[in-house]
Amino acid sequence: MPHKLDARQADFERAFADFLDVRRAEEADVDRTVQGILADVRARGDAALLDYTAKLDRYETTAAGLKVTHEELEGAVAQCDPDTVEALQLARQRIAAFHEHQKPADLDYTDADGVRMGHRWTPIDAVGLYVPGGTAAYPSSVLMNAVPAKVAGVERVVMVVPAPDGVLNPLVLAAARIAGIDEVYRIGGAQAVAALAYGTETIAPVDKITGPGNAYVASAKKQVFGTVGIDMIAGPSEVLIVADKDNDPAIVAADLLAQSEHDVNAQSILITDDADFGEAVERAVQTHLQRLPRSEIAGESWRRHGAVIQVGQIEEAGRLIDRVAPEHLELQVADPDALLRTFRHAGAIFMGGHAPEVLGDYVAGPNHVLPTGRSARFSSGLSVLDFMKRSSLLQSSPAGFAKIGPAAVALAHAEGLDAHALSVKLRLNEG
Amino acid sequence: MPHKLDARQADFERAFADFLDVRRAEEADVDRTVQGILADVRARGDAALLDYTAKLDRYETTAAGLKVTHEELEGAVAQCDPDTVEALQLARQRIAAFHEHQKPADLDYTDADGVRMGHRWTPIDAVGLYVPGGTAAYPSSVLMNAVPAKVAGVERVVMVVPAPDGVLNPLVLAAARIAGIDEVYRIGGAQAVAALAYGTETIAPVDKITGPGNAYVASAKKQVFGTVGIDMIAGPSEVLIVADKDNDPAIVAADLLAQSEHDVNAQSILITDDADFGEAVERAVQTHLQRLPRSEIAGESWRRHGAVIQVGQIEEAGRLIDRVAPEHLELQVADPDALLRTFRHAGAIFMGGHAPEVLGDYVAGPNHVLPTGRSARFSSGLSVLDFMKRSSLLQSSPAGFAKIGPAAVALAHAEGLDAHALSVKLRLNEG
Repeated sequence: MPHKLDARQADFERAFADFLDVRRAEEADVDRTVQGILADVRARGDAALLDYTAKLDRYETTAAGLKVTHEELEGAVAQCDPDTVEALQLARQRIAAFHEHQKPADLDYTDADGVRMGHRWTPIDAVGLYVPGGTAAYPSSVLMNAVPAKVAGVERVVMVVPAPDGVLNPLVLAAARIAGIDEVYRIGGAQAVAALAYGTETIAPVDKITGPGNAYVASAKKQVFGTVGIDMIAGPSEVLIVADKDNDPAIVAADLLAQSEHDVNAQSILITDDADFGEAVERAVQTHLQRLPRSEIAGESWRRHGAVIQVGQIEEAGRLIDRVAPEHLELQVADPDALLRTFRHAGAIFMGGHAPEVLGDYVAGPNHVLPTGRSARFSSGLSVLDFMKRSSLLQSSPAGFAKIGPAAVALAHAEGLDAHALSVKLRLNEG
Repeated sequence: MPHKLDARQADFERAFADFLDVRRAEEADVDRTVQGILADVRARGDAALLDYTAKLDRYETTAAGLKVTHEELEGAVAQCDPDTVEALQLARQRIAAFHEHQKPADLDYTDADGVRMGHRWTPIDAVGLYVPGGTAAYPSSVLMNAVPAKVAGVERVVMVVPAPDGVLNPLVLAAARIAGIDEVYRIGGAQAVAALAYGTETIAPVDKITGPGNAYVASAKKQVFGTVGIDMIAGPSEVLIVADKDNDPAIVAADLLAQSEHDVNAQSILITDDADFGEAVERAVQTHLQRLPRSEIAGESWRRHGAVIQVGQIEEAGRLIDRVAPEHLELQVADPDALLRTFRHAGAIFMGGHAPEVLGDYVAGPNHVLPTGRSARFSSGLSVLDFMKRSSLLQSSPAGFAKIGPAAVALAHAEGLDAHALSVKLRLNEG
């Protein structure tokens, strides 16, 4: 049974707070292990990388064999179902079109005092994209990470993907090819993160690493942060659906299960103003579970972490949304724009009956790499900005300098930094 | 003696690479200690906070005594030199004016297929600003962190600042007051970061923590990342000055020392095309050092980490700038705009003879919180964007959904996620 909460009950606040407090993923104590792997790859380069790949992925290869060839990438596309390739191409094109809108503008202006200020944005030189192997190998995730980097103008986009027992997922390679990535290595885990951050004889280091991974990859990313940039550390995925009774319970149930089927730690929450509708959705969940291939995972996620929350009026949902700060938010209500004005925290907002999360997961255009575990309170989904950086600009006329320079001298003296003061005073001919 | 490098020599590449590789700050093994403090404050709240404050800051107080009163903030302004207060007010106004230009625009458009996409930016609810105590207590740093948060629209800006032996720097409190901060606690170290991240009985938790600190604060920020957002982990500061011979050596020397005087691990580098000018700057450094109060720190920094790099032509500097990716870059050359086009990596760029770094440190407007230690390759200075987050929006017409939905179904099946496929198929009446 999923959690049942009723916002009209006296004990709701406490029950809701308890529900939010439950940690969905156990954090294994992997930091120590990862620390050793990072140091080893940093010290021994390719030799260490090959050792860990043999041991952890059960794949013996040579330094030259680490790189996936152009022919293998081309071959992967040929090997995939043409409909899937076409869908990946449509997705790539739509993701690129949306992300083009995110390209930031430079700034360059001179104020009334004669001080020129601004900033310019430039792409990061080299980015490494981590792609998980095995069951979590998603071609859509390749596109969602690689396309914004390409739109940003990143010159070198490198992909790493583990090949357990030597096997790679052709869909993932096809997505890389479609995204325009031509540097792919068959490595994974903390050792791949180390290779990207520090470089080896075979793999030149990158400036930033993005992409999802298991606890070892997450720990490695956290530990190399500073040497390179990283994107967010993603936790289990979640959806919050606000639906009134005018929806089809079977459809809302499918949307809940689309989240639950990812992982037993995934979370699906329904907020509704209609008890009968909520029960109908729960029944539809059970019906769907009887025929879904991943029903074991989805069912366990729904029982352990799912919830149906009843509110008196649909408008009350906004307050709860901000408390959850969901990664994905579906507003399946008559006037989603009105509800939009009542909350602030959500990674991605899906409005109305024809924009299920799944549309955004694959083909709509906005990014599906989003802040999880309430981090939408302070962070955003992946964007073109994550693949660029900004340099500020400053220039001044002599008159502008004469006007504001003395205040800099005053503050330098106040902070006890006399060389700072001197730098300005000499220019004011007061040295 | 600072390092001497000559780009015209055969061994330059190796020498330059070695120079860049030197780590300027020793990383103490503080993570374990910090882990204990974080866990203790999380578990025991105020009681732990008071214990650590008594032990580490030698300051015994009560939970009620942690908060700096409104009267204390007002009193601090009254206690400061009026010229300094006026300079802080000018700085606040100019920093706010510049950062207003950084406020991002929302996006909302519908494409030819009838798919509505966009994003909206909202401020983070609550931000904690860490301010170091003691000698590194800089009022300018308070403004540079607080003003962008205020411009972003953050409702609750909290400041923490340690009071070693119970003493607070009135300039720091005055800057807080001028920046409009009214919630200030006299706590510091990892215990303050823990209080901000997890909350205590007295201090409500925040969503993001920014601001500089020592190794313990840096480790604490890194460890709470995920529970809250953090800004970058700042290392020792650095400046790279590109100057031709038409500059006054005494002025360039002062600019170099303005960086060196921060910290023995700070770094100042001069690139010039004129050997005589380089030597004149070195002599001027020695002359300045004889009269500067912080000459011991500045001299040690200059000897250990300073460098004079000679290039054949000033245009060759661009390539070296990108290798250093300096936090601060001064272009004291005839045509700084031309040089600007030859490189990409720098935190802040100061152009021409009337825009020394110091002007930007205090009053010009752009932020002085900038990426250090080559991280300008992948990150940017503090901005309004660091205090906001973006939610993506998606909506679709039935026709748009019918057009792109089938591609989502194809990809869902390819990834083996049947509930994903079902969510779309039911809406296509294919369930």
